[in-house]
Amino acid sequence: MNTFGRTLRLISFGESHGPAIGGVLDGFPAGLDLDLQQVQQALDYRNPSQAAIGSGRRETDQVEFLSGIWQGKSLGTPIAFLIRNRDARLEDYAVLEHAFRPGHADDTWLAKYGIRDYRGGGRASARETVARVVGGALARQLLFPMGIRIYAYACQIGSVRLEKSFAQIDADHVYSYQSRCPDPDTDEAMLSHMQEVRLSGDSIGGVVECRVAGMPKGLGEPVYDKLTARLAMAMLGINAARAFEVGQGFAAAGMRGSEHDDTWLPDGTTANNMSGGIRGGISTGEDVLFRVAFKPIPTISRSQMYLTDDGRLQEASMAGRHDVCCVPRAVSIVESMTALVLADMYLLNRCSRV
Amino acid sequence: MNTFGRTLRLISFGESHGPAIGGVLDGFPAGLDLDLQQVQQALDYRNPSQAAIGSGRRETDQVEFLSGIWQGKSLGTPIAFLIRNRDARLEDYAVLEHAFRPGHADDTWLAKYGIRDYRGGGRASARETVARVVGGALARQLLFPMGIRIYAYACQIGSVRLEKSFAQIDADHVYSYQSRCPDPDTDEAMLSHMQEVRLSGDSIGGVVECRVAGMPKGLGEPVYDKLTARLAMAMLGINAARAFEVGQGFAAAGMRGSEHDDTWLPDGTTANNMSGGIRGGISTGEDVLFRVAFKPIPTISRSQMYLTDDGRLQEASMAGRHDVCCVPRAVSIVESMTALVLADMYLLNRCSRV
Amino acid sequence: MNTFGRTLRLISFGESHGPAIGGVLDGFPAGLDLDLQQVQQALDYRNPSQAAIGSGRRETDQVEFLSGIWQGKSLGTPIAFLIRNRDARLEDYAVLEHAFRPGHADDTWLAKYGIRDYRGGGRASARETVARVVGGALARQLLFPMGIRIYAYACQIGSVRLEKSFAQIDADHVYSYQSRCPDPDTDEAMLSHMQEVRLSGDSIGGVVECRVAGMPKGLGEPVYDKLTARLAMAMLGINAARAFEVGQGFAAAGMRGSEHDDTWLPDGTTANNMSGGIRGGISTGEDVLFRVAFKPIPTISRSQMYLTDDGRLQEASMAGRHDVCCVPRAVSIVESMTALVLADMYLLNRCSRV
Amino acid sequence: MNTFGRTLRLISFGESHGPAIGGVLDGFPAGLDLDLQQVQQALDYRNPSQAAIGSGRRETDQVEFLSGIWQGKSLGTPIAFLIRNRDARLEDYAVLEHAFRPGHADDTWLAKYGIRDYRGGGRASARETVARVVGGALARQLLFPMGIRIYAYACQIGSVRLEKSFAQIDADHVYSYQSRCPDPDTDEAMLSHMQEVRLSGDSIGGVVECRVAGMPKGLGEPVYDKLTARLAMAMLGINAARAFEVGQGFAAAGMRGSEHDDTWLPDGTTANNMSGGIRGGISTGEDVLFRVAFKPIPTISRSQMYLTDDGRLQEASMAGRHDVCCVPRAVSIVESMTALVLADMYLLNRCSRV
Repeated sequence: MNTFGRTLRLISFGESHGPAIGGVLDGFPAGLDLDLQQVQQALDYRNPSQAAIGSGRRETDQVEFLSGIWQGKSLGTPIAFLIRNRDARLEDYAVLEHAFRPGHADDTWLAKYGIRDYRGGGRASARETVARVVGGALARQLLFPMGIRIYAYACQIGSVRLEKSFAQIDADHVYSYQSRCPDPDTDEAMLSHMQEVRLSGDSIGGVVECRVAGMPKGLGEPVYDKLTARLAMAMLGINAARAFEVGQGFAAAGMRGSEHDDTWLPDGTTANNMSGGIRGGISTGEDVLFRVAFKPIPTISRSQMYLTDDGRLQEASMAGRHDVCCVPRAVSIVESMTALVLADMYLLNRCSRV
Repeated sequence: MNTFGRTLRLISFGESHGPAIGGVLDGFPAGLDLDLQQVQQALDYRNPSQAAIGSGRRETDQVEFLSGIWQGKSLGTPIAFLIRNRDARLEDYAVLEHAFRPGHADDTWLAKYGIRDYRGGGRASARETVARVVGGALARQLLFPMGIRIYAYACQIGSVRLEKSFAQIDADHVYSYQSRCPDPDTDEAMLSHMQEVRLSGDSIGGVVECRVAGMPKGLGEPVYDKLTARLAMAMLGINAARAFEVGQGFAAAGMRGSEHDDTWLPDGTTANNMSGGIRGGISTGEDVLFRVAFKPIPTISRSQMYLTDDGRLQEASMAGRHDVCCVPRAVSIVESMTALVLADMYLLNRCSRV
Repeated sequence: MNTFGRTLRLISFGESHGPAIGGVLDGFPAGLDLDLQQVQQALDYRNPSQAAIGSGRRETDQVEFLSGIWQGKSLGTPIAFLIRNRDARLEDYAVLEHAFRPGHADDTWLAKYGIRDYRGGGRASARETVARVVGGALARQLLFPMGIRIYAYACQIGSVRLEKSFAQIDADHVYSYQSRCPDPDTDEAMLSHMQEVRLSGDSIGGVVECRVAGMPKGLGEPVYDKLTARLAMAMLGINAARAFEVGQGFAAAGMRGSEHDDTWLPDGTTANNMSGGIRGGISTGEDVLFRVAFKPIPTISRSQMYLTDDGRLQEASMAGRHDVCCVPRAVSIVESMTALVLADMYLLNRCSRV
Repeated sequence: MNTFGRTLRLISFGESHGPAIGGVLDGFPAGLDLDLQQVQQALDYRNPSQAAIGSGRRETDQVEFLSGIWQGKSLGTPIAFLIRNRDARLEDYAVLEHAFRPGHADDTWLAKYGIRDYRGGGRASARETVARVVGGALARQLLFPMGIRIYAYACQIGSVRLEKSFAQIDADHVYSYQSRCPDPDTDEAMLSHMQEVRLSGDSIGGVVECRVAGMPKGLGEPVYDKLTARLAMAMLGINAARAFEVGQGFAAAGMRGSEHDDTWLPDGTTANNMSGGIRGGISTGEDVLFRVAFKPIPTISRSQMYLTDDGRLQEASMAGRHDVCCVPRAVSIVESMTALVLADMYLLNRCSRV
């Protein structure tokens, strides 16, 4: 069950402190010119500066491609790749051999499998997302020629929210901003908020917003694989994600039908795109709009109480090996998962008609 | 792509005004005593009184089983079933032959397939959910002997919210309440709110909350099929669903790690279950908690502007064939989809260890 | 696991003596004009005259479509259908409640599921193949406009073999021949052979040959889903099938490379199509050629020794409820499964290139 | 579509002359002690001495594991592995840039994808089977504790056939024999036959037989995923495979029911296992028996006529880079694919009953 997608499928593998993280992207059509520098760049984008995210692990994340690409083109065969794990300080994790961190998946993985690689969370680590970024960067190259553009960005970090509209932000340069919020003032505010939270020995949550422009009309599958449903699954599959909403989201619950009204314009678009670009699970051709909420990273610098596997509480700390907020990293992951969903739906649509 | 689930799979079929809606539940284990009256009752529960939901279509929804069950037991073979469509007033939909309702999927399905059964929304109709209710009712019978109990209920309809805690409500008798909010006062307030909205010719959204008690620890699949991810997909696949959150959901975005803290208790549970019963995508054994938001039904009694397939705006109305709020029906659908997800995850777990 | 195919998927359901056999064909593209008379005719073709096959069960096999087709066209939604079981003489099977027939799956299904519907073999009955014939008849209508033509026919029944080449037989009228061998002399010989075998209270095996003309080049998937592999799976999934070979088949094992030589012609075809139209698992554009062997039906008119579920041998007989040879029925099933495989591969190919 | 299996899934990747061949084995249960030396040995077994198979490519085939195994145990997470390609003499394949070998898949892959990695057949090369051998060797370790034993061996190479019964051969030491026929006399005859064929500048086909002992009763899925069907798919998915038969296979076509008679013994086994251990697609608990035929390798030492991509015939030769018969290698591949099928079926069966 480590596969994402149906026609375009990403299979990922790897534990945080094993030899490598990697993946296989199967179902990628043949004959596309691929820019592998862009893939490496996407990996780099996943690693904001330490100023932004705190004092996490440092990995250079060099991707090696093993198959499926030749002379710069996709072959139609599986594209396999790997990223070696290098900054693996195993001694940092000795305490985890017999203890479970609060808010982590240490105990649940053990309950499921009866065994766990406790080093850095093993496969539960967010380090796995490097595979998604590589897969997503390739998927985006499939979508690009159709004019599809994916803009993900931080819209909330802790108590700091982006208050500007999409038109007012610098969405084309999200990755120039360390917080991944493409507005200079908000970026600065988010960075200093994260700095303050870090100094207090704490962590903080946030929200990533995503807008997809240039959408074709008609993407999405009935009835369980609605575009909304597939995006929701993609987003809640990201580490620390806790919520997803599309269009008006939770606010729609308090609205009347006359208010949440996708008023037609004669050209087939609507006056206000209340639906966030998806009606009946199928794209309308208007911009797709959704948000994903992330909880604060459970590991903090202050000491915490761990639970030992023989049922005792034990004070411990993982100081120095965690981010203060996952949102700056999550932006590129949201973007990647969106690209994988859309590319899959695009290919599925090739079979919708005779 | 009309299949839900992996080991336990529901395939549904049928258009709103075609001969029947039905499904096939494949992968259901052999040898379970099945109570088919309970399945019929679940279908009845999906149909609140007209007082609650307005003036919608009336269907008796009698389920016929075609296979997979013999002498009261599951055979291990596919369980096929159908519900004949009876109250199909086709003349009501003549206007839709060449016009698209606002907020519906009429145009998006046409864009995808190049053809559509415009009668009552065809396969995009929420009538399809009867198949989910049958599948879910069977799945629940698989979960019941393990002690798993699913409680879904209305927690918000328009501006009326349930303000009581789970311990204070009558969760064992949700379906005795027309609004599906199991608190007499809130139920009454919701009903009169819906009545008022209906009289104003409008519709209203709402939120369904779901709590699963008696959860085993260890359900959920890495890394894309986290229990959170699969629930999110299941919920956003329901008609009119717009948002999903688990545990603290969107509120977690504004919290600090020290606040969103799953403090261990020595028995392996936590002080406050901030995670909503799922950590790292795998169940913790504590209650699973999530919420789903629904938009207002786009068809309202007031006349609306439809878009014709030759690009004109045309005044029209679908008076008398729609609910005022989908939440009372959605409760049983949320419950059904939850049961399907959990049963699938339960069966998948049989292969997680040697 | 009652699903066949990947992009075009047939899910079948039903027990031999339950209410109905049916299926759902999902992934069928929208907008195709469908001739439902042809589907019914395919079902009729599955039922040769009693003269040919002996004294089996009589079913009229009327198909009812429940969804996915409207105004004569496919909607792109699941096409569900059912065939009610009518000639179910349950009393004939009372002996099977506690006894296993030799050569049947009575005991193996019980071993797998711990429960079995013993009436007529339950889901193990070849009656399930009516679902395949309906699915295959629809798939064939998808292939027809491309010029793909599937010719399956009996080439051996017991000791009688068809000795003529494809060019010499009446392949366009296979179903005019009761043995399904489209050569008047061989048909007559096969019929009298079956008659003789029947009078001796025995049964007999045979071989179905299949040739697909008008093949596009390039169908088949790497590396596990080669066209050869998928056809082999399709054929060995038919009741009583025991062997499959493509092109020169087993004979190729004794040949030298210089002999089994697909000598090129300048137009890209070969001098002798030794490969049977598939090289490297992908169609060459030349005719696809394969054969499927069927064992004799294990139920014979003579009395046999059954094994009781408490380990005793017991004399019994199922006189009057079985065919003398499955090949005349199997021809239409081979044709149907071939159509399902090719239609799936055709749709899969829409995603092989950018 | 580079995935094999459903619950236990092998995804393979890699081109013959790309950086590596590898795979991901997903769904492997946690907690099994794994002997990785055995996996390497299985890879070595795939490489018979040059005396046996001629003058093919020499690869040492060292496997590197990247994930899913820790401290000698399976983690329940994906087991990824790779084998670097080393003996890649690219200059040997320059002729293939614009020409298609007879009997190979050069042209069919190009027709499918519009692009091909022509070096050594790219992904169509039998070199891909190293991934199957690694996956199969792991699967075998899952089956071993249950007592399941898989014996594959050469039973025919060209005109030399193994004439002894299973009881008379040295099945426990198949890999001690260069031909992979575990009978000293037949081995010697096969080796000298291959030698003679090689000297004549030709190649030769053959047959691999497989017997699985220690089978549990009840493996196999209805109705399209019969154990026969899945084995057939697995075998016809092997390069150069042309035919498959189980039990009496093609011979059953000429037999009468009274002759092809699985006569019951009181212990639930049969007098003669005519069915080859599978009835109704489900294992009987008796030995599973099947055979797979392979065509002669189409590349021979003599010069051959190639077809250029502009439609000309051109004399060429691939001397020195091919085996004379694929059977000695195929034995370990047949064994591997059998293990993958059985392990998948074994895991699927965990969900067949409540």
